[in-house]
Amino acid sequence: MRLRKFAVSGLFLLFAALGAHAQNKTVAERLGYPADSKLLIVHADDLAVAHSVDTASFDALTRNAVNSASIMVPCAWLTEVAAFAKNHPEADLGLHLTLTSEWKTYRWGPVESKDKVPSLLDSAGYLWPESPTAASHIKPEEAEREIRTQIENAIAVGIHPTHLDSHMGTLFNTPELFAVYAKVAHDYHLPFLAPRLPGELSKLLSLLSDKDVVVDSFIIANPSVPAGEWKDFYVNAVKNLKPGLTEIIVHLGHDDAELQAVTLDHPDYGSAWRQRDYDVAPPGGSATMM
Amino acid sequence: MRLRKFAVSGLFLLFAALGAHAQNKTVAERLGYPADSKLLIVHADDLAVAHSVDTASFDALTRNAVNSASIMVPCAWLTEVAAFAKNHPEADLGLHLTLTSEWKTYRWGPVESKDKVPSLLDSAGYLWPESPTAASHIKPEEAEREIRTQIENAIAVGIHPTHLDSHMGTLFNTPELFAVYAKVAHDYHLPFLAPRLPGELSKLLSLLSDKDVVVDSFIIANPSVPAGEWKDFYVNAVKNLKPGLTEIIVHLGHDDAELQAVTLDHPDYGSAWRQRDYDVAPPGGSATMM
Repeated sequence: MRLRKFAVSGLFLLFAALGAHAQNKTVAERLGYPADSKLLIVHADDLAVAHSVDTASFDALTRNAVNSASIMVPCAWLTEVAAFAKNHPEADLGLHLTLTSEWKTYRWGPVESKDKVPSLLDSAGYLWPESPTAASHIKPEEAEREIRTQIENAIAVGIHPTHLDSHMGTLFNTPELFAVYAKVAHDYHLPFLAPRLPGELSKLLSLLSDKDVVVDSFIIANPSVPAGEWKDFYVNAVKNLKPGLTEIIVHLGHDDAELQAVTLDHPDYGSAWRQRDYDVAPPGGSATMM
Repeated sequence: MRLRKFAVSGLFLLFAALGAHAQNKTVAERLGYPADSKLLIVHADDLAVAHSVDTASFDALTRNAVNSASIMVPCAWLTEVAAFAKNHPEADLGLHLTLTSEWKTYRWGPVESKDKVPSLLDSAGYLWPESPTAASHIKPEEAEREIRTQIENAIAVGIHPTHLDSHMGTLFNTPELFAVYAKVAHDYHLPFLAPRLPGELSKLLSLLSDKDVVVDSFIIANPSVPAGEWKDFYVNAVKNLKPGLTEIIVHLGHDDAELQAVTLDHPDYGSAWRQRDYDVAPPGGSATMM
């Protein structure tokens, strides 16, 4: 059975359309594995944002150093990712639904007609730079229009999305945005990544059905990890895997002129950060993270 | 007097708002120079299309290897160019009005709301890839909306455009598109580059006023120039300058991973081409083209 969708817990849940199963089985059992299996999804974010990110992510997908990834549809390199998807139909490529444009030198707007989604736009007509700012301005019905258009646009360029998640977690910021996200995901029968909102958990759980599955644990590098201990962070995460379904989210890229310019003045999730993530499973290396 | 706008002839004219002067003076005299002066503008196209193009063009502008350039407003690196413009208020930066998105892997849509300019869009919602296809589909009133929005958007991000021209010459393809272009340029009091359309010259000349100036000659590299004779092409062009106002149009970039990916499968105006243009006046070189 192919794991079409991916992990999460601690902070995150995953709702996945995996067929009707009793909720009292473990996630592993529901996915067709022995009850105490350790299952790992390594997921690369941000495809299409930059050529540097694309080449690093394509390489990792091809070598099975990651086994899932998601795409930013409003970004300029979408057709590069679409060409990869066409040539690699086995690649598990979802959509990193994008309602923010966070870099200084390099920006994008919505895919939908701007006059249909005015609450998504800053004064220059780009998506808001910060996720909380975006969430405070965006009208849920306009978020719905935009994410539906992102899905349709991805399909129009030949991508068959396997799952949905939310760039910078913007769709996790309010119950209203989350509800739109869940509705669209259900409409398209797509698994989707979702957070446990403090105090709002019951609302999220009410969206679960027998077809949805909650993922057990979730791992992502953070600014407290020293650069010199980057690989150890991931190696320890894998060594300490617990039974159940775990997702590791990575941000891959080459620390080159393009990516340094894209991520200007922002070391967190910046160019060197993405090179470190990529270097954990370098080309030609025999050990992947899987 | 500062030459705020640039050249053309042979195939091109330039209409420039330089104040009311008698049309029977030479261009040089009307610009305040002796009648037989040799005046040269070296103009870099395509700023904002890629970081590689931006850094090469910024370097050439800073060193006066070029003295004018124009910006593609719909492209993702616009805010990088806006930051340069803010820090270099002396830079002569116009707008390379953009109605096409010609590369395979890297694309952009309009700045205007898509539902207000549907004739500008291909099936995936990007601008048309080819200039003749674009010109055959685009409704002039929608072209007008888009180019006005590009000008307003440039102003919104802090750019004060000095002139207008047309990416891939799309606005020179039909008299109707040209008329829109001239109207918008006149409305904004901006000099604009324009072609002599075969058989349509009288229509263009009818747009000239005492405030407009026709540029005398126009030079651009073309695919028939061997790579090894690139510098000779420009050196000979400068040696053979004739009295009057000449414009050389260049396309600058670094032949790096980003630009190679942007210009995939398209050597004309491609990554190596732009590196060759850049190398004609390399960093640290004492001889510029001016």
